[in-house]
Amino acid sequence: MVTASICTIGDEILIGQIVDTNSSMISRALNAIGVKVARMISASDSKEDIFATIRHCARLSDIVILTGGLGPTKDDITKNALAEFTGAKGFVRSEEQYAIIEKVLAARGIELSDINRAQAMVPDTCKVILNECGTAPCMEFVLRREDGREYILFSMPGVPFETENALPKVIQEIISHFKMENIFHKTVCTFGIPESTLSKMIEKWEDDLPENIHLAYLPNTILGVRLRLSIYGTDKERGENEIDREIAKLRGIIGEAIYGYGESSLQEAIGKLLADKGMTVCTAESCTGGKIASLITNVAGASKYFKGSVIAYDNSIKENLLNVAHETLVRYGAVSRECVEQMAEGVRKAMNCDFSVATSGVAGPGGGSETNPVGTVWIAVSAKGKVKSLKLHFKAPRAVNIERFASHALNFLRETILEYYRNN
Amino acid sequence: MVTASICTIGDEILIGQIVDTNSSMISRALNAIGVKVARMISASDSKEDIFATIRHCARLSDIVILTGGLGPTKDDITKNALAEFTGAKGFVRSEEQYAIIEKVLAARGIELSDINRAQAMVPDTCKVILNECGTAPCMEFVLRREDGREYILFSMPGVPFETENALPKVIQEIISHFKMENIFHKTVCTFGIPESTLSKMIEKWEDDLPENIHLAYLPNTILGVRLRLSIYGTDKERGENEIDREIAKLRGIIGEAIYGYGESSLQEAIGKLLADKGMTVCTAESCTGGKIASLITNVAGASKYFKGSVIAYDNSIKENLLNVAHETLVRYGAVSRECVEQMAEGVRKAMNCDFSVATSGVAGPGGGSETNPVGTVWIAVSAKGKVKSLKLHFKAPRAVNIERFASHALNFLRETILEYYRNN
Repeated sequence: MVTASICTIGDEILIGQIVDTNSSMISRALNAIGVKVARMISASDSKEDIFATIRHCARLSDIVILTGGLGPTKDDITKNALAEFTGAKGFVRSEEQYAIIEKVLAARGIELSDINRAQAMVPDTCKVILNECGTAPCMEFVLRREDGREYILFSMPGVPFETENALPKVIQEIISHFKMENIFHKTVCTFGIPESTLSKMIEKWEDDLPENIHLAYLPNTILGVRLRLSIYGTDKERGENEIDREIAKLRGIIGEAIYGYGESSLQEAIGKLLADKGMTVCTAESCTGGKIASLITNVAGASKYFKGSVIAYDNSIKENLLNVAHETLVRYGAVSRECVEQMAEGVRKAMNCDFSVATSGVAGPGGGSETNPVGTVWIAVSAKGKVKSLKLHFKAPRAVNIERFASHALNFLRETILEYYRNN
Repeated sequence: MVTASICTIGDEILIGQIVDTNSSMISRALNAIGVKVARMISASDSKEDIFATIRHCARLSDIVILTGGLGPTKDDITKNALAEFTGAKGFVRSEEQYAIIEKVLAARGIELSDINRAQAMVPDTCKVILNECGTAPCMEFVLRREDGREYILFSMPGVPFETENALPKVIQEIISHFKMENIFHKTVCTFGIPESTLSKMIEKWEDDLPENIHLAYLPNTILGVRLRLSIYGTDKERGENEIDREIAKLRGIIGEAIYGYGESSLQEAIGKLLADKGMTVCTAESCTGGKIASLITNVAGASKYFKGSVIAYDNSIKENLLNVAHETLVRYGAVSRECVEQMAEGVRKAMNCDFSVATSGVAGPGGGSETNPVGTVWIAVSAKGKVKSLKLHFKAPRAVNIERFASHALNFLRETILEYYRNN
């Protein structure tokens, strides 16, 4: 099996000011072609660290992918370090990348400077892989370890969307160098059953899995518990069939807790349910402050089924735009079944939708009371006027509470749509 | 200087299904007490990898912090691996953690199972650090490298909010073991000037920096370009004074492009500006779909100045709830100066706010036209009825376009508030 290591270069990652999202993106792309990632490493913007990290990774794997440290400023030293590491005699200008630099900066309305021009210069030891949407080109080096074994070293820009854009070309280079072993994963996305309960529910199924299938639990407070089934070393069709057979059994045990497969999300699952039947949805959000709408509209094509939202943070907005009765707010307060149900129905009518979901709660850290401590949320869903609600409670920091409120609201909406479809 | 390595254990990270946010959180906490992070590494859920990673990190640093792999399910093997690695003779039950497990599961409404009970068992070689909001305790081991030098190994749960909650206790343990060297960072947050332009603007200032001050550029499409100034090995007061002197000079060059310091965000900067003067804001969002509202309400206490939003994804919502003229939509379309200015003023009046911000654009991948290709956004801001607007264009994937639209909208709002305060 071909193996790779992914190295992120940059003090800003080691110091914790930036979260590394490139490594997981690159890893997913490698996995898809059957390259196993052996290590992810972050090292500092120092020549010694870059050298040591490449050597360490080259011992562990056939491919080393560096990201970052290619910016135009003085603290970015990866390109010079790689020139020295690979014994370059000098730098040459990539005319194609130069043309892209001119185009990219013109599109951004930035004047071309010497600093930008220098980004088209690359060590004469590398093959250039063009970066179509940024100024720093990718570089590929074929190198030998101390023991004489060949490995390939890639250097990619660290700006995530530039990395993402250049990644398919790097993957293509890898495919053309190595003959890959087959691999197949399928991830089952579940929501609403806690990991340890789920583990107990499916214990027998898990024990009965064929030996060549590996199961991993991927618990996530936002996405729910995902179950990843993997087969290495089999052909794809047989692997897929074998895994699908096991998933069919799993569905018999946990049913509608499964909302999708692979990279699916609750908002995508909802989008599919609605688009398939030409139905529409809207949201009325207090404590989630637009998070649910934002998740729904992150899905391309959401305009087919999502009409809009009213974020009613202030009580006056609940009354004036969502038609919540003043009396309700006075008697029961904003964080109550009565208020959230009126919000759901109010927004659904105002936006003329089939379904709606509403939230009102206390994200914290302030605003808690004895009845409604920090972490409390009321969620209501309306299906063509039939309104249901539930109350939940979490004990997390503000941002996590908001995310959990939003994902539970989405799941409640999903369950309600499924129920509506069953009955109508 | 005391050094640390941070290791994340878990196939789910290597395979790219989960982004590691723990490492940066831990790194920030270590930095704050003057511990320098030498490496971040992700390794798989295998005993061999865990052993190799600990040994590699112990060679590089005085502290090794592991996160993850402590879950209740079969694929989590960190605890058993650590028992073997540290030569434990057996497991003992932490009565305090057991009590927490009972409490945590009761609060979540989950029945206590044998799997959960087993989480209170720890190797007899460790000191337990309680995990107050989860079931897996943290563990601390004092160990020796092959060369006889002592190092400390910590094992922490991988669920981010559990890691965050337990982190102060781990930091306290570290402080009590080592005498730290002083360090001081200050990060200057800027927005609106591209990295290479900024680098040219402040070149002379950068060249004139005292030798003991290190400058790093932290470009980020959402947060703007942040500039981190660091001093190692000086006392805090002197370091702070020295850095503040340089920042004062920087402010003279780039002025209001600076929106804050440290972990600041545009929405926090706006929140402070509004709360200080008792002013209020609301948003009307089409293409950003609630992202701006969600960012604003991520700030604790946002209810003081944020009243709400109308997410007008569908044109009918723009007309009915935001009072955009039907004529405008027909003649100019939704992605136009005319529409977005009416949205801004419409929502400001509907919600009775001092300021408002509105967006309408094409996030992609579909929906582009010759006039308004994918990545185009119109942003309008109203300050008590005085409306201004601008058009921008980005070339990124949908999610990144939405984030950029939102951060540019927030910055436009911030600049408008500053201008309003200057003139009124």
